[in-house]
Amino acid sequence: MPPGGVGSRASAMATLRGLAHERFVDPQVGGLLEELEARDLDPESDDGALVRVTRRDYDHSVKIPAELVAEAARASTEARPVWQLAREDSDWKLFAPYLDRNVDINRRIADALGYAERPYDALLDRSEPGMTTRQLDALFGRLREAIVPLVHEIGRRQDAVDDSCLWGDWDERAQLDFGMQVVTRFGFDSERGRQDLSAHPFSSGLGAGDVRITTRVSRRSVSQAMFGTMHESGHAMYTQGHAPEFDGTPLWGGASPGVHESQSRLWENLVGRSRPMWRYFLGPLRQAFPGRLDGVDEETFYRAVNKVYPSLIRVEADEVTYNLHILLRFEIENDLLDRELKAADVPEAWNAKVEQYLGIKVPDDTQGALQDIHWSGISFGGFPGYTLGNVIGAQLMETVREAIPDLDDQIAAGEFGSLHGWLKEKVWRHGRKFTPGELLHRITGRSLEAEPWIRYVQQKFAEIYDLDLAAPRQH
Amino acid sequence: MPPGGVGSRASAMATLRGLAHERFVDPQVGGLLEELEARDLDPESDDGALVRVTRRDYDHSVKIPAELVAEAARASTEARPVWQLAREDSDWKLFAPYLDRNVDINRRIADALGYAERPYDALLDRSEPGMTTRQLDALFGRLREAIVPLVHEIGRRQDAVDDSCLWGDWDERAQLDFGMQVVTRFGFDSERGRQDLSAHPFSSGLGAGDVRITTRVSRRSVSQAMFGTMHESGHAMYTQGHAPEFDGTPLWGGASPGVHESQSRLWENLVGRSRPMWRYFLGPLRQAFPGRLDGVDEETFYRAVNKVYPSLIRVEADEVTYNLHILLRFEIENDLLDRELKAADVPEAWNAKVEQYLGIKVPDDTQGALQDIHWSGISFGGFPGYTLGNVIGAQLMETVREAIPDLDDQIAAGEFGSLHGWLKEKVWRHGRKFTPGELLHRITGRSLEAEPWIRYVQQKFAEIYDLDLAAPRQH
Repeated sequence: MPPGGVGSRASAMATLRGLAHERFVDPQVGGLLEELEARDLDPESDDGALVRVTRRDYDHSVKIPAELVAEAARASTEARPVWQLAREDSDWKLFAPYLDRNVDINRRIADALGYAERPYDALLDRSEPGMTTRQLDALFGRLREAIVPLVHEIGRRQDAVDDSCLWGDWDERAQLDFGMQVVTRFGFDSERGRQDLSAHPFSSGLGAGDVRITTRVSRRSVSQAMFGTMHESGHAMYTQGHAPEFDGTPLWGGASPGVHESQSRLWENLVGRSRPMWRYFLGPLRQAFPGRLDGVDEETFYRAVNKVYPSLIRVEADEVTYNLHILLRFEIENDLLDRELKAADVPEAWNAKVEQYLGIKVPDDTQGALQDIHWSGISFGGFPGYTLGNVIGAQLMETVREAIPDLDDQIAAGEFGSLHGWLKEKVWRHGRKFTPGELLHRITGRSLEAEPWIRYVQQKFAEIYDLDLAAPRQH
Repeated sequence: MPPGGVGSRASAMATLRGLAHERFVDPQVGGLLEELEARDLDPESDDGALVRVTRRDYDHSVKIPAELVAEAARASTEARPVWQLAREDSDWKLFAPYLDRNVDINRRIADALGYAERPYDALLDRSEPGMTTRQLDALFGRLREAIVPLVHEIGRRQDAVDDSCLWGDWDERAQLDFGMQVVTRFGFDSERGRQDLSAHPFSSGLGAGDVRITTRVSRRSVSQAMFGTMHESGHAMYTQGHAPEFDGTPLWGGASPGVHESQSRLWENLVGRSRPMWRYFLGPLRQAFPGRLDGVDEETFYRAVNKVYPSLIRVEADEVTYNLHILLRFEIENDLLDRELKAADVPEAWNAKVEQYLGIKVPDDTQGALQDIHWSGISFGGFPGYTLGNVIGAQLMETVREAIPDLDDQIAAGEFGSLHGWLKEKVWRHGRKFTPGELLHRITGRSLEAEPWIRYVQQKFAEIYDLDLAAPRQH
């Protein structure tokens, strides 16, 4: 979009959102829902799910007063440019009063929605239905316990992995084409989607037959576009895989941002950064960039794409450290909502946590508490979705491996049909029919657990970095 | 858009159009209009124009019964694929019954809208407000009289112009960049617009700050993308030039398709295919394609881009023959509407007119009456806009030349600011405030006339083809 287009797009979006909201919260819709609920539809049926999911959306929409919605929109619009300025100058004081107001509005939204234990529950339930703060507390506790020592161990062995083969000068067109070659093999359907360039990669579903991914390409490194494309293809295949009959109904979409992220992470990391992946794809990659990878073997390449870089910036974080970035935001958002922390004191809390979890010092707030755009909007409760994605992805993958015992052989042969088919059948086609917890239970027979992901990460990185995790070094 | 996206886009468009229509035809809107009309607002004022234009749109919208709108949409949807098939096989009989139905629906729409003399008046008034069939009859009569002999004369001197310098192998990226270089100098604002590729060039205004042009590029010839981009920039600058306060109101948009086309033709032909244009731009073009135009001088290049090719296909027609393609469609549409011609007999009428006007034989209906998509929809009355564009453009240009006597010197110096400013002030900023006739009268002091265009074309092409038009050759 050209710079001048911002205003008209914002105004078109506001008009459409306003009209859609106005029609949806009509009491007649509530009446129709009551009528349908009285029919006791089979909760396993699509009709039953349709009523259940629409009721959830309806309640969320009617509970928040229109004035509060308008106030939230206004506050975001005002805070956004201030955050931008503050970030440029690393000037937290400028932004702090706006964050205080945003915390207050988040809190009032939580109050309007209602919650059993903590305000965060209300906000979380809106994006991750059925999930509680208590559950996440336990999950993050386990992750912290397991990863913090792992990150510290890896930090001592930085030189064990050499990723210099990924750097240099890589033709941009060839990178885009290679990414499409990979995700087309994964099963991304180009008849019902396309790839474009963007500054911030995303995927979007304009309809069942039009699911787009965008990619950012860097000439300096071959990995950004490649793994970015795999990541977005996971989101896009999820959308392409919804049951066609859900198109245009409230059941169309992902179960939650967390479940969505599980699909992107699964393809990006559990598949894309695996050994068998590169047994197959190193050849095509060499063909795409003649001469660029001479003398680089599968093992070197596999290790390179898995190098761990403890970093200050969430969006640059690797597979191991990513969840720690989310953990600290989860803790800070909760403390703010519970009024145990004031906006003014956020940088201090932030910097202490970064040092504790990642072992690095934050030089300024631009690289610290001002790095993400999220707090300039009214969107508390959204960050955990990223960690849920990692954890759910790994938990699903353990069940996949039971169902497809020779998965690694298939991947090493460039065959992704069984995996694609399994995910479509078990996850994608259901759209929003089940909550994340219901879906996970149906598929794995268990609730959400941190253990599969911890096992996966410990095993993979202990081997890459030659660590003896059974007997952690004293420090 | 990926192929699979057609369905969801169609459904989204239908929903939005339906909702917008439903809200607009609400009798409350009619009541508000009556209230405002009673206030006797100054017809020259924006408020006065807003009420007048909204009334016109409202009357058009309420006069056509919803069932007829739905029937028209259904008929188009059904006829489109049949037209496509018929065109592939040059099988008019397949398409004829669908055209008969479309004629009937066009006729019923005309009846619903009402007209003084002929059904065509009603359809024409919808796109070119204030214009009558009688007026067009006279206009086309003058054009036919003047151009048919000119085309025949030029046909005898085909070899007088050599355009081989335009053909060969031209880098596509460089063509796009050169096109942008040209239209940026014209005054197209990239901060509020952008250029993209498409199979069928068009321009679109998503909002005052987001006006896009699309371009088709052929490696084989440098002229298609170049003149296509100039053409679309004319449309786009018109849109970018509307008074900002009209944004989001019924006054935002062009006065009519004909006036819109006058702006695209003016920049493409009256400026783009002029001698001073290439005095300035041949240098930059040489720089964009090093070595490609060695030994080609301004005069050769100017003559090449003005070569006349009497052709069977409207969209490939040159400046001289274009109006004849429109003329024959205008005549056939009128005969169909007046029930003087049946769909079955259209090819015969078509082929006779092509031979009479253009001096060429139609080998099959694919290159004849089946070439355009238009008749598969319910859009009679639209074709004259193309000819109005040529004629209005030339008429405006005569007034421009009085206002800016050294226009050619400015163009030859690559200066387009005065022309851009004049058009913005006189045409673009007014949006839909005035009808085409009102606008033309305000600017030129005269009604629509064929003479300026005829003078322009006769003078230009008599010189290029070395014709003595004062004493036409006997034949």
